[in-house]
Amino acid sequence: MSVTAAKGFRAAGVTAGLKPSGSPDVALVVNDGPTYDAAAVFTSNRVEAAPVTWSRQVLTDGRVDAVVLNSGGANAITGAQGFADTHATAERVAQVLGVSAGDVAVCSTGLIGELLPMPTLLAGVDEAATTLSPQGGSVAATAIMTTDTRSKQAVASGDGWTVGGMAKGAGMLAPALATMLVVITTDAQVPSQQLATALRAATALTFDRVDSDGCQSTNDTVLLMASGASGVAPDPQQFQDAVTEVCADLARQLIGDAEGAHHDIAIEVRSAATESDALEVGRAIARNNLFKCAIFGKDPNWGRVLAAVGTTSAAFDPHQLGVSINGVQVCRDGGVGDDRNLVDLEPRDVHLVVDLSAGEHTATIWTNDLTHDYVHENSAYST
Amino acid sequence: MSVTAAKGFRAAGVTAGLKPSGSPDVALVVNDGPTYDAAAVFTSNRVEAAPVTWSRQVLTDGRVDAVVLNSGGANAITGAQGFADTHATAERVAQVLGVSAGDVAVCSTGLIGELLPMPTLLAGVDEAATTLSPQGGSVAATAIMTTDTRSKQAVASGDGWTVGGMAKGAGMLAPALATMLVVITTDAQVPSQQLATALRAATALTFDRVDSDGCQSTNDTVLLMASGASGVAPDPQQFQDAVTEVCADLARQLIGDAEGAHHDIAIEVRSAATESDALEVGRAIARNNLFKCAIFGKDPNWGRVLAAVGTTSAAFDPHQLGVSINGVQVCRDGGVGDDRNLVDLEPRDVHLVVDLSAGEHTATIWTNDLTHDYVHENSAYST
Repeated sequence: MSVTAAKGFRAAGVTAGLKPSGSPDVALVVNDGPTYDAAAVFTSNRVEAAPVTWSRQVLTDGRVDAVVLNSGGANAITGAQGFADTHATAERVAQVLGVSAGDVAVCSTGLIGELLPMPTLLAGVDEAATTLSPQGGSVAATAIMTTDTRSKQAVASGDGWTVGGMAKGAGMLAPALATMLVVITTDAQVPSQQLATALRAATALTFDRVDSDGCQSTNDTVLLMASGASGVAPDPQQFQDAVTEVCADLARQLIGDAEGAHHDIAIEVRSAATESDALEVGRAIARNNLFKCAIFGKDPNWGRVLAAVGTTSAAFDPHQLGVSINGVQVCRDGGVGDDRNLVDLEPRDVHLVVDLSAGEHTATIWTNDLTHDYVHENSAYST
Repeated sequence: MSVTAAKGFRAAGVTAGLKPSGSPDVALVVNDGPTYDAAAVFTSNRVEAAPVTWSRQVLTDGRVDAVVLNSGGANAITGAQGFADTHATAERVAQVLGVSAGDVAVCSTGLIGELLPMPTLLAGVDEAATTLSPQGGSVAATAIMTTDTRSKQAVASGDGWTVGGMAKGAGMLAPALATMLVVITTDAQVPSQQLATALRAATALTFDRVDSDGCQSTNDTVLLMASGASGVAPDPQQFQDAVTEVCADLARQLIGDAEGAHHDIAIEVRSAATESDALEVGRAIARNNLFKCAIFGKDPNWGRVLAAVGTTSAAFDPHQLGVSINGVQVCRDGGVGDDRNLVDLEPRDVHLVVDLSAGEHTATIWTNDLTHDYVHENSAYST
């Protein structure tokens, strides 16, 4: 499963001791070739963590031999020492694997603004290298968890080739990217430029449309590595579809495990003049705390939806807006529609449809409700 | 006090029965002249309530003889019937006062997407008209409360003239405007154009910089009415200062009474390249749920502050950013600063300073923490 579903990859997950809980906290994923093509998408946050700065450099030549990931510390806003620590981590991986440090990507997640305990981390790297295995995908997926309650893995298959992936992320989920670390592997033969095209297209439709709490992280990384071990060069569209399928599966798992959430909400914006309008409206609703609290309270308070729509620059006439919640059209032509008491908000899945009556474009944003548990998780602990 | 502190105004507040609680819910403020100049600022939300649409029309000629305000229902997204109801309310006020309906402003606040019970409201208007009094400011301030726990009133004085005001608002507080109804009166002799200039300048520095929960309402109105009853034409700058003082006082009261808040947070952005940059950064922080939860938890989690800064387009170098919380500089030159454990977050007032090291402009945004009580208030009741 996971990153070792594709041939040509080994992985490991160990407990180095970065997390007080004693759970696994260092993961290693190694590409054994014969090809080493790679592509990545990083956070658009201008305050980016040291491992993001490092990995951007690694990816410039489209080759990655291995990626090391740690939970228990984000190594973000840690200055020159933080970058030196990331560099040292890549050097240690390179040394134990016999590769070049310039081909080792690094990902970190956890509290921002603290230096990593380097002896502990480097000992974890050494141990991970000794336990690398073609069955190591699942334990690697466990080692990158922070406030996640379960590990996230997905697999898709083509004609003789496979795409597999793992993800972590439960809070700080907002687009471009949703805050997360994701590693996707494939044994297809795909050059790095094609990997980049497929990955950008896949993330635009999946991770970029997840907006759990509107908060964008400093460490987001989605890495796609191809070993070529299947010996098959896939049809580009089929390959892109498979990568999108894995990303969509992982994105759904992220929303389903978002911190403290009681409802998973699909916000479908219909009849928009442009796709960009649909996305802007969807995101404005997804970030409206009053709407998110109402859904938690099982209150179909659709006025809060239109109050959010009204803050956007999308094309619409307020007198032609429509809203339906779980199939009940509570707002019609910008006025009161069917009885809001008919709406059943007991199920975890909520389907909100906003009709802008302005064109032919549709887009869906996924988010969660705002709950006591979210406030608790994000106030009681430093994460 | 309040809107009847200035000469030439009478006010009333009565219980019409719009609120299940039986608290006062209809207020009336009447200008007895000799002048009737007025100006107003309205929500920038494109989905605006019927009373906002109506009052915009009333204000076009710069004259307002009276304003009627109701809590217990926002009359927003109520279509043609909602607008007809607002019109009928203004007509009733005009009839009982012997003025023109075109000079009667209307404000409503409460649940969006429900029609008002008109016989109840109109009976309230009749009763309010019979109890108008030069001492009615305080009870009028009570009648516009929704989830407010206390009424908000303020007064400032010039040489022989007075400015007084009342406000309501406890949730849906976000700029342009912070969600609220505000009525300000003065007995100074000021033409409507000068009123508009003073009011726009005052709101830009006060209500527009309050961002409690990032949610913008459909009903925001700030109305300024001048009776000229003092016979004094004030110095324009002194008058603008007095209006700003009243607005700032009311804005502080709004933040101090925001739904479920445990901390009042002043976000001061220093050394910005432009004032607009400072405001953009301040608002990004004020809307970051993770930061707001951390403050609730008394956790000086400054990484969440810089993660929010990084999402803006403001000019800055990530390696030159500084953050201090309640006097402790926890981040220096984009890296770890003094020990975060030195920060005391027990007091209700929190002073966050973010230094962009990019110029000479400063601005402050006021917000609150995100608490269990906020989630409770906005999930357990329809408001």
